[in-house]
Amino acid sequence: MPYKETYPSKLLQEAVDSISSLPGVGRRSALRLALHLLRQPQENVHHFTAAINALRDDVCYCRRCRMISDEDICSICADHTRDHRTICVVESVRDVMSIEATGQYHGVYHVLGGIISPIAGVGPSDLTIRELSERVKALENPASAEVILALSGDVEGETTAFYIYRQVEATGVKVTSLARGLGFGDDLEYADSLTLGRSIQNRQVFKIDT
Amino acid sequence: MPYKETYPSKLLQEAVDSISSLPGVGRRSALRLALHLLRQPQENVHHFTAAINALRDDVCYCRRCRMISDEDICSICADHTRDHRTICVVESVRDVMSIEATGQYHGVYHVLGGIISPIAGVGPSDLTIRELSERVKALENPASAEVILALSGDVEGETTAFYIYRQVEATGVKVTSLARGLGFGDDLEYADSLTLGRSIQNRQVFKIDT
Repeated sequence: MPYKETYPSKLLQEAVDSISSLPGVGRRSALRLALHLLRQPQENVHHFTAAINALRDDVCYCRRCRMISDEDICSICADHTRDHRTICVVESVRDVMSIEATGQYHGVYHVLGGIISPIAGVGPSDLTIRELSERVKALENPASAEVILALSGDVEGETTAFYIYRQVEATGVKVTSLARGLGFGDDLEYADSLTLGRSIQNRQVFKIDT
Repeated sequence: MPYKETYPSKLLQEAVDSISSLPGVGRRSALRLALHLLRQPQENVHHFTAAINALRDDVCYCRRCRMISDEDICSICADHTRDHRTICVVESVRDVMSIEATGQYHGVYHVLGGIISPIAGVGPSDLTIRELSERVKALENPASAEVILALSGDVEGETTAFYIYRQVEATGVKVTSLARGLGFGDDLEYADSLTLGRSIQNRQVFKIDT
């Protein structure tokens, strides 16, 4: 049933227009959120909008890895206990947060800020690939360092991975990509055949975790 | 799996804190929205926050029915073609918009601004019941006017309806409530037994819509 929209107030309509421009927020949810904000103390609403403005206006990106940071160099790049000769290349800030949340990675990152996508009009020069390439060249003895391509497994991800590989291969750096296969705990029955097929091809020597 | 949160930036964390305070928005969605806003042109983000601030700071409520309005009297109350002797009492602004969207109602409204709920600490004096009572008393010949109690069917709604009935009954105004029963197109099999039972009790003379 289409929802006939008649707003009692232009201010309400403009707020709903703005809120529903967020990804995944429909006009009904936007109205619910707008009416919620309207019921909050004025101070809370100002705090809400100020936090968003501050994020957009004042956020910095790490000079080295292009991660969001409050400083010129992010806390990961500034951490001397991490392995600065292993660079994990990711599409976005969120990927860094996801990998950090695993607690399994102790190297550093390089945030591309997107992925090569001719359809979306994103080319290599729109990303931080040149900066990555310079970072790798600047490493002492690159041949004993590693670049992990932690990109998505779709066409854009593979294209970007291939392009980066070509940019850095001359340095002799070791280039790896994420292991792909069945998820831990996944049921064979429900796995898609591409993933299952690759899982068989890339089978590993069985070992018992100690 | 718990999501370990380590924010690369205090500004990002504060924005996520604020966004996730919205109802129905979890911290993961809030992060997604914050990163989305970060990718937007600064101007768009300022427009977004300005629309929300403007809503909260500048919105007015109709002096007569307490509906959100840009004017002192809302467009519904100012409309002389509507029936001003039929007052539909609702909990919130959203209810007015829902009823208006049906196109089936031509009277006016009274927005209570909430519902009597001892648990939530909302008493009659927190709502606009006194104003409603005065509106009814001010009607010419209230006995030929009507108050429709369009409140929810839960305990709070019934309590509020009863309270309002007691406040206005002395004027002799006709008090009605919304028809309750199976929804149009509802399957008997899936109806809850309370609704189905009430639907049988409140059965209506069969008529063919012309």
